[in-house]
Amino acid sequence: MVFKISPLSPRNIQELPPLSGVRIATAEAGIKYKGRTDLLFILFDEPASVAGVFTRSQCPSAPVDHCRASLPHGVARGVVVNSGNANAFTGRKGKQTTDSIARAAASALKVKENEIFIASTGVIGEPMDAACVVNLLPNMAATAEEGNWLEAAKAIMTTDTFPKLSTRRFDCGGETVTINGIAKGAGMIAPDMATTLSFVVSDADISSDILQSMLSEAVQGSFNSITVDSDTSTSDTLMMFATGKVKGNFLPLMSKSDPRYEVFAKQLSGLLRELALQVVCDGEGARHLIEVNVTGATTDSAAKTVALSIANSPLVKTAIAGEDANWGRVVMAVGKAGVEVDRDLLTIWFGEHRLAINGERDPEYREETIGTYMQGKHITIRVDIGLGVGKATVWSCDLTQEYVMINGDYRS
Amino acid sequence: MVFKISPLSPRNIQELPPLSGVRIATAEAGIKYKGRTDLLFILFDEPASVAGVFTRSQCPSAPVDHCRASLPHGVARGVVVNSGNANAFTGRKGKQTTDSIARAAASALKVKENEIFIASTGVIGEPMDAACVVNLLPNMAATAEEGNWLEAAKAIMTTDTFPKLSTRRFDCGGETVTINGIAKGAGMIAPDMATTLSFVVSDADISSDILQSMLSEAVQGSFNSITVDSDTSTSDTLMMFATGKVKGNFLPLMSKSDPRYEVFAKQLSGLLRELALQVVCDGEGARHLIEVNVTGATTDSAAKTVALSIANSPLVKTAIAGEDANWGRVVMAVGKAGVEVDRDLLTIWFGEHRLAINGERDPEYREETIGTYMQGKHITIRVDIGLGVGKATVWSCDLTQEYVMINGDYRS
Repeated sequence: MVFKISPLSPRNIQELPPLSGVRIATAEAGIKYKGRTDLLFILFDEPASVAGVFTRSQCPSAPVDHCRASLPHGVARGVVVNSGNANAFTGRKGKQTTDSIARAAASALKVKENEIFIASTGVIGEPMDAACVVNLLPNMAATAEEGNWLEAAKAIMTTDTFPKLSTRRFDCGGETVTINGIAKGAGMIAPDMATTLSFVVSDADISSDILQSMLSEAVQGSFNSITVDSDTSTSDTLMMFATGKVKGNFLPLMSKSDPRYEVFAKQLSGLLRELALQVVCDGEGARHLIEVNVTGATTDSAAKTVALSIANSPLVKTAIAGEDANWGRVVMAVGKAGVEVDRDLLTIWFGEHRLAINGERDPEYREETIGTYMQGKHITIRVDIGLGVGKATVWSCDLTQEYVMINGDYRS
Repeated sequence: MVFKISPLSPRNIQELPPLSGVRIATAEAGIKYKGRTDLLFILFDEPASVAGVFTRSQCPSAPVDHCRASLPHGVARGVVVNSGNANAFTGRKGKQTTDSIARAAASALKVKENEIFIASTGVIGEPMDAACVVNLLPNMAATAEEGNWLEAAKAIMTTDTFPKLSTRRFDCGGETVTINGIAKGAGMIAPDMATTLSFVVSDADISSDILQSMLSEAVQGSFNSITVDSDTSTSDTLMMFATGKVKGNFLPLMSKSDPRYEVFAKQLSGLLRELALQVVCDGEGARHLIEVNVTGATTDSAAKTVALSIANSPLVKTAIAGEDANWGRVVMAVGKAGVEVDRDLLTIWFGEHRLAINGERDPEYREETIGTYMQGKHITIRVDIGLGVGKATVWSCDLTQEYVMINGDYRS
């Protein structure tokens, strides 16, 4: 474990406003970590709308199974999240654990079990004892308070070096609404769906199906456009809730043709992107944030394939770690992506520096001039394919010795 | 650059017998490296059959373009290989360089330019001056000698820590034939096609089309089943030549129905696998060879997809580096592979140790017992999918801090 804070962390941690009727409690369940909170209970005093996006892993965790099964009911009253154990690949015992947790939380709140959502993050394959969670829930339910978002973000951290929070407050059809979001990340971060736990709550009144539509759209340009190490977790969970408790006269948003849809969706996209970038900036061992912009591909999808090929390439990522403008490795990553490109039409920039054009090194390029740029924390790699109008942006981080240390050597 | 030798290197470097009419010369062209050879010239005193398999990169190097264009002619008289510069993404200048080298080699040997094959390995995007190669070729042609295979293997090394050679001598239809092969690897090693330069020569009499058929088949279970870092080079080249100079009465092998086809193909497969494994064992920073066996998939192709997902996973590879039997990450890699699996039917072994079965940790498994196994140099991960009869084996190596250092930090 590395305790120091990522050099890419935001200067200031955002303060999230309390949301009426959304109460939060955290506790030390001692599942794996000692001397810190590892359990989060979010309670909705009245039924909230709910939407979710989950891992596409063929080996999803028991909590993911539970959430998928509960989602069609469309009502949320509570969310229980733990760190330290993923309750993944734990067979029948895993389901018994989520059943026990759902039962205990539902009982504490006097609601239905399928109105409780569960997420777990941590080691895969360790059986998880429900008791240490279940025993704490009644007291947490009794003592939960509005606010406490920072504590919520901290309780779900694993190898994260800073808590991840984002908030938006904006006018939506004449009323001021709020969206609060928290996330955790660190390793096993790759799209489809970004390997994080993330929980977003708004006080707006939005139906569950519309909430799902907004969430599924907004995830594309945020959590589905980041990668730390190309590994996809068994536990990826992004859930969103809407309480409808906003003050004033906010009529229920129940249609995509409602003009407030676009307003809200845009703010949600911004918030999710901010959370997703915080996840990349806290990628295990990350020292540089890498933004990859691909333009001129035959389709947007082809552009994204190329962008991910660059963003996931160990050789590109180690070069950035070494502050080396090794654009030849970008050519390699474009070439291996498997989509239509024409080598002799490629143009490549690092920041504003054009390094290659017309299938060869830019004759104007001087390696001396790029040194300072490569020492920056935020490196932008731009590739124009020269064939069409398809474009995509993805974010990644560099691959450092610390990544290897965190993920392998810490036991030895 | 790391100078010490990989701990996975073979105990003894194989001694390759001279092949009649195959002459070899090496030289110090000073393309990038100083104080070592970086140029190899293989000459065939009489026309040899030729076959080749090349990178599937959409951004192939100029030498790959040259070889692809020359291959249909079906005759080889010389091979020129340099290390230190890949002559890739070098635009028109790149083609001028290969043209100059082919012209000079052809002139020295008094043969046609499309009977000269060229391969280059090293930095991408640096213009490569032909003069330093061209000027040396006449003298190399004049002084080349039969034998010298070890020197040939050394001249094509880049970040390789040991030269890679393999040989086979066997009875083929009543006559004793020989196959010699050399390879280089180190980084940017992933299938389709394995990111190496590799040259194989036999004294058997085999037509170019049959040679191509054998080579294309044999590459599947060898160079197309290894991965160091999932990155595919612009320059991958595996070429094979057959001189027909074998002693005795070896009638030309010109048909797949010839019973000698299977005999030869099997030996060739063994030789290529040996070379490919040497490449993995010299993967940059490698400390453990990882063999991944997948059985029980719906198809062989699905099995290979799962095997590569495991073999390329940074989290699996860092765990092996840390000698940690983190089988949960194997579950993760199976789950993200995108092919049909049933979580609750998976079985996972590390060596002979069964760690997981029926969707959860094996109740019999004790972590204490696996420690010694994980300290071995050769780790076998076996996964049974439990759905069908599809199977595949791939080889990889662990991901160590040294890999990151070699590929990033050495400039700083």
